[in-house]
Amino acid sequence: MKKVGFIGLGVMGLGMAANLLRKGFEVAVYNRTAGKADSLLALGATELGSPSAVAGSVDVVITMISNDSAIREVYFGENGIFEGIRSGVTLIDSSTISPTLAKELAAEAEARSAAFLDAPVTGSKPAAVDGTLVFMVGGNADRLGEVEDILLAMGRKVIPMGPNGSGSIAKLAHNTIVGINVVALAEGMAIAASGGIDGHAFVELVQSGGAASRAAEMKGPKLLEGNYDVQFSLELMLKDLRLSSVLSDSLNVPTPLLEASKSLFQVGDAMGLGALDMSSVGQAYEQWIGRKLGHKG
Amino acid sequence: MKKVGFIGLGVMGLGMAANLLRKGFEVAVYNRTAGKADSLLALGATELGSPSAVAGSVDVVITMISNDSAIREVYFGENGIFEGIRSGVTLIDSSTISPTLAKELAAEAEARSAAFLDAPVTGSKPAAVDGTLVFMVGGNADRLGEVEDILLAMGRKVIPMGPNGSGSIAKLAHNTIVGINVVALAEGMAIAASGGIDGHAFVELVQSGGAASRAAEMKGPKLLEGNYDVQFSLELMLKDLRLSSVLSDSLNVPTPLLEASKSLFQVGDAMGLGALDMSSVGQAYEQWIGRKLGHKG
Amino acid sequence: MKKVGFIGLGVMGLGMAANLLRKGFEVAVYNRTAGKADSLLALGATELGSPSAVAGSVDVVITMISNDSAIREVYFGENGIFEGIRSGVTLIDSSTISPTLAKELAAEAEARSAAFLDAPVTGSKPAAVDGTLVFMVGGNADRLGEVEDILLAMGRKVIPMGPNGSGSIAKLAHNTIVGINVVALAEGMAIAASGGIDGHAFVELVQSGGAASRAAEMKGPKLLEGNYDVQFSLELMLKDLRLSSVLSDSLNVPTPLLEASKSLFQVGDAMGLGALDMSSVGQAYEQWIGRKLGHKG
Amino acid sequence: MKKVGFIGLGVMGLGMAANLLRKGFEVAVYNRTAGKADSLLALGATELGSPSAVAGSVDVVITMISNDSAIREVYFGENGIFEGIRSGVTLIDSSTISPTLAKELAAEAEARSAAFLDAPVTGSKPAAVDGTLVFMVGGNADRLGEVEDILLAMGRKVIPMGPNGSGSIAKLAHNTIVGINVVALAEGMAIAASGGIDGHAFVELVQSGGAASRAAEMKGPKLLEGNYDVQFSLELMLKDLRLSSVLSDSLNVPTPLLEASKSLFQVGDAMGLGALDMSSVGQAYEQWIGRKLGHKG
Repeated sequence: MKKVGFIGLGVMGLGMAANLLRKGFEVAVYNRTAGKADSLLALGATELGSPSAVAGSVDVVITMISNDSAIREVYFGENGIFEGIRSGVTLIDSSTISPTLAKELAAEAEARSAAFLDAPVTGSKPAAVDGTLVFMVGGNADRLGEVEDILLAMGRKVIPMGPNGSGSIAKLAHNTIVGINVVALAEGMAIAASGGIDGHAFVELVQSGGAASRAAEMKGPKLLEGNYDVQFSLELMLKDLRLSSVLSDSLNVPTPLLEASKSLFQVGDAMGLGALDMSSVGQAYEQWIGRKLGHKG
Repeated sequence: MKKVGFIGLGVMGLGMAANLLRKGFEVAVYNRTAGKADSLLALGATELGSPSAVAGSVDVVITMISNDSAIREVYFGENGIFEGIRSGVTLIDSSTISPTLAKELAAEAEARSAAFLDAPVTGSKPAAVDGTLVFMVGGNADRLGEVEDILLAMGRKVIPMGPNGSGSIAKLAHNTIVGINVVALAEGMAIAASGGIDGHAFVELVQSGGAASRAAEMKGPKLLEGNYDVQFSLELMLKDLRLSSVLSDSLNVPTPLLEASKSLFQVGDAMGLGALDMSSVGQAYEQWIGRKLGHKG
Repeated sequence: MKKVGFIGLGVMGLGMAANLLRKGFEVAVYNRTAGKADSLLALGATELGSPSAVAGSVDVVITMISNDSAIREVYFGENGIFEGIRSGVTLIDSSTISPTLAKELAAEAEARSAAFLDAPVTGSKPAAVDGTLVFMVGGNADRLGEVEDILLAMGRKVIPMGPNGSGSIAKLAHNTIVGINVVALAEGMAIAASGGIDGHAFVELVQSGGAASRAAEMKGPKLLEGNYDVQFSLELMLKDLRLSSVLSDSLNVPTPLLEASKSLFQVGDAMGLGALDMSSVGQAYEQWIGRKLGHKG
Repeated sequence: MKKVGFIGLGVMGLGMAANLLRKGFEVAVYNRTAGKADSLLALGATELGSPSAVAGSVDVVITMISNDSAIREVYFGENGIFEGIRSGVTLIDSSTISPTLAKELAAEAEARSAAFLDAPVTGSKPAAVDGTLVFMVGGNADRLGEVEDILLAMGRKVIPMGPNGSGSIAKLAHNTIVGINVVALAEGMAIAASGGIDGHAFVELVQSGGAASRAAEMKGPKLLEGNYDVQFSLELMLKDLRLSSVLSDSLNVPTPLLEASKSLFQVGDAMGLGALDMSSVGQAYEQWIGRKLGHKG
């Protein structure tokens, strides 16, 4: 059975690595901040001292890290992955990074006789814990075939998207839709609440009709209750929309809804909501209309 | 059993009236253009010569008509509903009209010792045919209670929304979300297609992830195939967004996504797509990116 | 010399009527709220008791009133203009009203053998006082020729725009540009201030370069000083943008910048800034960036 | 008198360098494409073979080049400025570059005991030829003081903006306003034209009223005549708006009008208008309304 390295034990990474261990993979882990690996060690993981050490002792390395600059550090930095990598290793990044960086990592991996797959996921903490993530993957189809069992140990579906960078592009395009759908829900709820409609009745209607969406299913209850515990933070969504805006600029695609939504998440961030769930963007509307979105009709 | 009048035998109305007949209601119908009632006559309907005649011979009148000015004609015009109405009748309008007009109709009904409910629906032709519409209803709760059996003969759910006008407001807020979600899908597909991603893989991803929506379920296949047969026409969505824009203006709700989406449907309408399905708004993006949204990756 | 009636003695009307008197016209005035005419009586004006009385005793009636519903009352209401009007009279409305209402007033005037010109102005209080307004006029060119001397007694230029309604349309299109230019200035200043640039240096640059505008000339100093004394109130600009949005919808013109700007003025209005100068829309940006637009670099 | 080097002899650079020569400065020039310097040689310029050679033989180097990557090549590339630079030299870049790059160039210059000023200009070809440019300058005030005579040989005004990067930031904020104002004009003209208003009368009105702007002065005639000879190309404006969007993202400033305008220039670019004057963005509106903006009323 392939030996797997896992780097980045945040809220997503912990769940993913645990699923690998439960499915019987031998897993070596590394996290910049110490003390995160304890629950995994109990499941049989080995902890190593650097990305370089991980890359030097496994067949497949998975990274799950917050942003482009942290990824860059883990791959290119001192004691980083590329310092220790052996030929033949497959690198899989499941973070949401820019397509440009994905291609850069792929080129560097190839130069070292290794392979790289950009394999971001859709699904947040619960899906990471339950092993029901969906992977969208950019990179060589044969290499993907060799590691599909590993991905399916952590998720329920693997969708090949094309050459390197395609996974990143698909993720940004996907999350653009998520961000817009969340703002759409808040905006519709703001109209309804201002018109005196009961918030719960309206959300029931939304889910019964053509306006139904996963966003409404996940965020409707949060907006009704004003419960902004994090499923996916506003600042992470803003980060993704910025990456998507730069991407669509580089592809020369006019994206008026992406841009209008990005402005709204920026307003939310400026209101100090960055660390809350992205649905807290609804608070901008609440401030404007002087009424809660969970208005009782 | 209550006698029901049905006025407006378009694509929606025909299916709704047929379901009333199938459930055993006695139904008198009227349509401005002759010859539309034939299939209903075969099911036992009676055809009358004017809205006035219908309103004078039934307990409950249902109207299903395309826009504010046509509704105004049917209710207030010569040989219109208010000319023939008897006291005690309940009027139900299931069109999508402005809340202002809904309140006006309710006031006029009350002045004639009748009642009015604004009861628009979500669901398009298939739901009208199958009797699975969802009604959102504004108006007196007792009167709604008395006619709920009639509504449930045509639909699967009735959601009370508040006083008269609330049904209209809820519908416009709901359709605002629909319109935005459809453009969001097209915009995400445009980014993906421009980035070289296969359209089918991307839509599969959307439906597997947080971006999933009824809009994507209904319109994803249409956008992939460029099949713009009408489920709900672009010009009707544009009409609803305009009503919603006027409504949100009157309620003083800032609605940047509604407005950005309205502009895009206007662009689509200007491209001559008004009579096609609203998803044809995606053709604006196709023109801009010089590539089909159903791009083969 | 023609006898002139003047109805509506607000901040604009007072200055305009005074200029007519100074140029030697005989002027009969009416204002709904009493006591506004005193300064004009001192200049020789006659005060009458109703719009009807004014319309019955002059050759030309000028109206300058805040909105569509007040205009409707003055023309169509009890003791209104149309009740007292004599044949041959020319009615001139210099308010900013919807083109639809302008055409309705023109039709009613024609039915009474009178004439109507929609003649809104550009220029605010100082221009009304100095007699330097610019009139844009919709209506019959011959009738306009007959009253041009009256308009030029109050303004510096008269621009014929076409048939009735054209004056209104031109005004709304014009004010759409004004509204956008004001928000553009605030947005540019917000970027500059967030980047640490001195506000005064930036406004100097704007006025020295391709970004120069009347809006920047009028509003730059106000935004730098946070002085929102009214030149033209935020709520009036919002009213105009709403009329323009309805107009452009009816003309089927996609207007993404108008709509984005309208949303911002709505945000300003929701912040309680409606009665302040429209440039106070900049306070929305100040709240978002946590810094004054008049930032000292 | 200081010896000046000038690198980048495009449409702007040629005029600027000629003014330096006319004011008596000794000027050494370099351009990547040969044959551009002929008119300057006739005025007494010396032509050198590389940026490095220029930087090694003058007191002040001015660069005027199209984009970040070309600038990077000229400064950091083989035979680039930093290869040949002597200590004490002042580098002045008058291109429109990202603030990030401006700071990077300043840091590198300081490491080589030289100085850097980011000094972009407002004004297009005619101002470069006439010597009426306005310079907005980021960098050390003393170093700016030493070269102000050089800048004033090419322009009519020098505005200090703050530390390095401030010139770039000010330029992007300024051009954001320009871009929005141009689209605002086109959008207002589209409403007017659709309403049947004569285009020339409307532009006269704009320039007579509160909607007046340098953008309307420069672009109004072009939009009326459909003459899109380049003053400033659509693709360059799009480039600036993209830089401004990235900048405002990094500063966390919500910029809904910038984004809406950027989308429109992207649409224009997608229509194949990139190389035409930026006012050709009006053609998007013309396509949508099916009428020329220079409509004869």
